Amino acid sequence: MTILTVQEALAEIVAHVERLPAVPVALDEALGLVLAHDVVSDVDSPPFDKALMDGYAVRAGDLASGRATLRVIDEVLAGQVPWRPVGSGEATRIMTGAPIPEGADAVVQVEHTRPAITGSDAAVAIETTTVAAGRNIMKRGESLHKGTCVLPAGRQIRPQEIGALAELGHDPLAVYARPRVAVLSTGDELVPVGEVPGPGKIRNSNAAMLTAQLRHMGAEAVSLGVARDDPSSLRERIERGLAFDALVLSGGVSAGKLDLVPAVLAEAGVQRIFHKVQVKPGQPIWFGVFRRPPREESGPGPAPAAASAELHSKSCYVFGLPGNPVSSMVCCELFARTAIRRLMGVEPALPTPRRARLASDHFSRGNRPTYHPARFEWTESGAAVELVRWMGSADLSATVEANAMALFPEGERMYAAGAVVEVFLW
Amino acid sequence: MTILTVQEALAEIVAHVERLPAVPVALDEALGLVLAHDVVSDVDSPPFDKALMDGYAVRAGDLASGRATLRVIDEVLAGQVPWRPVGSGEATRIMTGAPIPEGADAVVQVEHTRPAITGSDAAVAIETTTVAAGRNIMKRGESLHKGTCVLPAGRQIRPQEIGALAELGHDPLAVYARPRVAVLSTGDELVPVGEVPGPGKIRNSNAAMLTAQLRHMGAEAVSLGVARDDPSSLRERIERGLAFDALVLSGGVSAGKLDLVPAVLAEAGVQRIFHKVQVKPGQPIWFGVFRRPPREESGPGPAPAAASAELHSKSCYVFGLPGNPVSSMVCCELFARTAIRRLMGVEPALPTPRRARLASDHFSRGNRPTYHPARFEWTESGAAVELVRWMGSADLSATVEANAMALFPEGERMYAAGAVVEVFLW
Repeated sequence: MTILTVQEALAEIVAHVERLPAVPVALDEALGLVLAHDVVSDVDSPPFDKALMDGYAVRAGDLASGRATLRVIDEVLAGQVPWRPVGSGEATRIMTGAPIPEGADAVVQVEHTRPAITGSDAAVAIETTTVAAGRNIMKRGESLHKGTCVLPAGRQIRPQEIGALAELGHDPLAVYARPRVAVLSTGDELVPVGEVPGPGKIRNSNAAMLTAQLRHMGAEAVSLGVARDDPSSLRERIERGLAFDALVLSGGVSAGKLDLVPAVLAEAGVQRIFHKVQVKPGQPIWFGVFRRPPREESGPGPAPAAASAELHSKSCYVFGLPGNPVSSMVCCELFARTAIRRLMGVEPALPTPRRARLASDHFSRGNRPTYHPARFEWTESGAAVELVRWMGSADLSATVEANAMALFPEGERMYAAGAVVEVFLW
Repeated sequence: MTILTVQEALAEIVAHVERLPAVPVALDEALGLVLAHDVVSDVDSPPFDKALMDGYAVRAGDLASGRATLRVIDEVLAGQVPWRPVGSGEATRIMTGAPIPEGADAVVQVEHTRPAITGSDAAVAIETTTVAAGRNIMKRGESLHKGTCVLPAGRQIRPQEIGALAELGHDPLAVYARPRVAVLSTGDELVPVGEVPGPGKIRNSNAAMLTAQLRHMGAEAVSLGVARDDPSSLRERIERGLAFDALVLSGGVSAGKLDLVPAVLAEAGVQRIFHKVQVKPGQPIWFGVFRRPPREESGPGPAPAAASAELHSKSCYVFGLPGNPVSSMVCCELFARTAIRRLMGVEPALPTPRRARLASDHFSRGNRPTYHPARFEWTESGAAVELVRWMGSADLSATVEANAMALFPEGERMYAAGAVVEVFLW
């Protein structure tokens, strides 16, 4: 069987995984999702010349010296519209956010003014520096012109995009659907987290960890529990999982006698794309595609707990990750993450390496590229990375000291402290 | 009134905001929260010497040459317990994750073996390199010894902590409660996002943005809508907000005639801690504490929509942010974020600056430290930061080009391209 490089495997994932369709969501639910359409402003922002301070709208020409006593002719609060134009010798009391009256071209902050009386009229005495036209005013359209593309399709929505979308009235809005992912652990040695493992048994830690990783990536993830090492238990759970946009299995994909997962996936109609990748920890990592029959034609078969209106993808993308927890975690970060980002429309979908200096010497030896749990840190002199003590693919406790993985290509080499290596943040 | 520096204001927040109490949560809900107790392993991990590969458990002494034909006496699958000790000249078929039988001290990968027959017995022919004791075996307790502190109190829970907590059977577990935060926009100029603003009006973009920012920090945030610029509307909404762990208001805190918020907060019994901070954008930023009466004594008064069993804090921490959207956003990132992190028990609570090189010359001039929207990027030569075009505190569209804010201290200074400045990531 062909063993792919990590790059080849990632390229296969990118080639096969299709973005989910665009769906409408409420603005309140859009954080983390990706815009399906350009957002073009249908208004100028601000929609009028606007006061940036509380104070008095004036004609700058009246305040070339910075001092004047002006007659107060009007008051405009935010949300109101000014009634009277400001003439020479006049001022209008104005609040932050309110529209500037005609004739005025500057706002003097209230802190530089005091009330005064001129004859029988209310007036204001101003003492400030020379006032230039435009002071404390935001011009109509200064932030945004009508017709400008504010947010391009493909933009992932952060809090500031939420603010801009709200300002432009986009609620609901069109985004690529949030992937729904099922997680399934396999193996007779696994007991639920709440139980005390008997002899030869361990707790099912992978389901909780993978579910958390997938949620962290922006997917909606649910655990389908543990499938036993027999074909019918596996088949039943896998068929439930195939009703999701993606299915992430752990365990059962190495060459052992009871590694039934590939056989059962094949039986269930999942097309294998690859089964082995040159990667440590990992290597037996399985990826395939299940092409779902169009909904009209699909019979009364199994599945649909998750299907129905909520189901978005035409295919279910299936990963069989190794059962050792660190292998599972690393392969989820490298491979499943790329698929989730493709489904969501997040670019770049591929893992982005950062470059950082090794904090200590490291001798690397391996017949596969190694992704070593590591602690990435900012220092005064730049990015640094320290490898954590790591006893291998079953040593989950090493990962809690880590926030990243450092990549060492295959082969024997001494990396001196200070050498620059590629680091992938978790 | 005293105007605080940013550092003084942050110190006040840290001094006043108390961490929420520890509460039990399901492991499935714990991502992002902070552990309230040390997690000590009550088992060795792995709990037994364990095979790291599928293959044959052997005595290394039989394979000094790397070649031998051994009698197969047993088979152990993951989740099973070996029955027979392995003697000299013998091997046990073993699967990844299964316990190593007595007598065996190495595992030979199945890829280096082929079935054979010795007399009437099943046998295995092995061809590999010299086998050293310990090959492909993870020793009992190698990842974790019973009694070791795996996760200290105060650790924020990421997917790898979820994995470790699951392995150790911590479900449910004790974490500091997730803060519940209310967001309230104020101002007669605001219309709901779904409406087309009339003359002088704008959409309420701050509520959606602040809610998203607070969720991004790990809080549970809800918008209470818009309070009008009249004392009774404000009073009613503020009292609803005081039933949460924190209340974040936007607008109504500057010196304008209708800036009623500080007065209504005082009336409602909220103790002002500070009202002004030397910061741009921002300056009028209000912080106070509402000490709730103990629950037994609290009368039938207003509030409790949010109270009852879900209410965790003895106080409600109140922020009055400026209404201009960029001011609101920046002040939320600097000040409200510090309070949220304190409530959650995340350390450090204070904003952590990164250092990055300016991509272009920048002339900075201001009587206050300025937090300028900026784009932070990794380059081959380290961290770089580019300022985005920014028209001031109402220019929300500038923030969508940014992923950070760059700090320029007060005063006039030319910063040449390549100068190192402090950057705060959003």
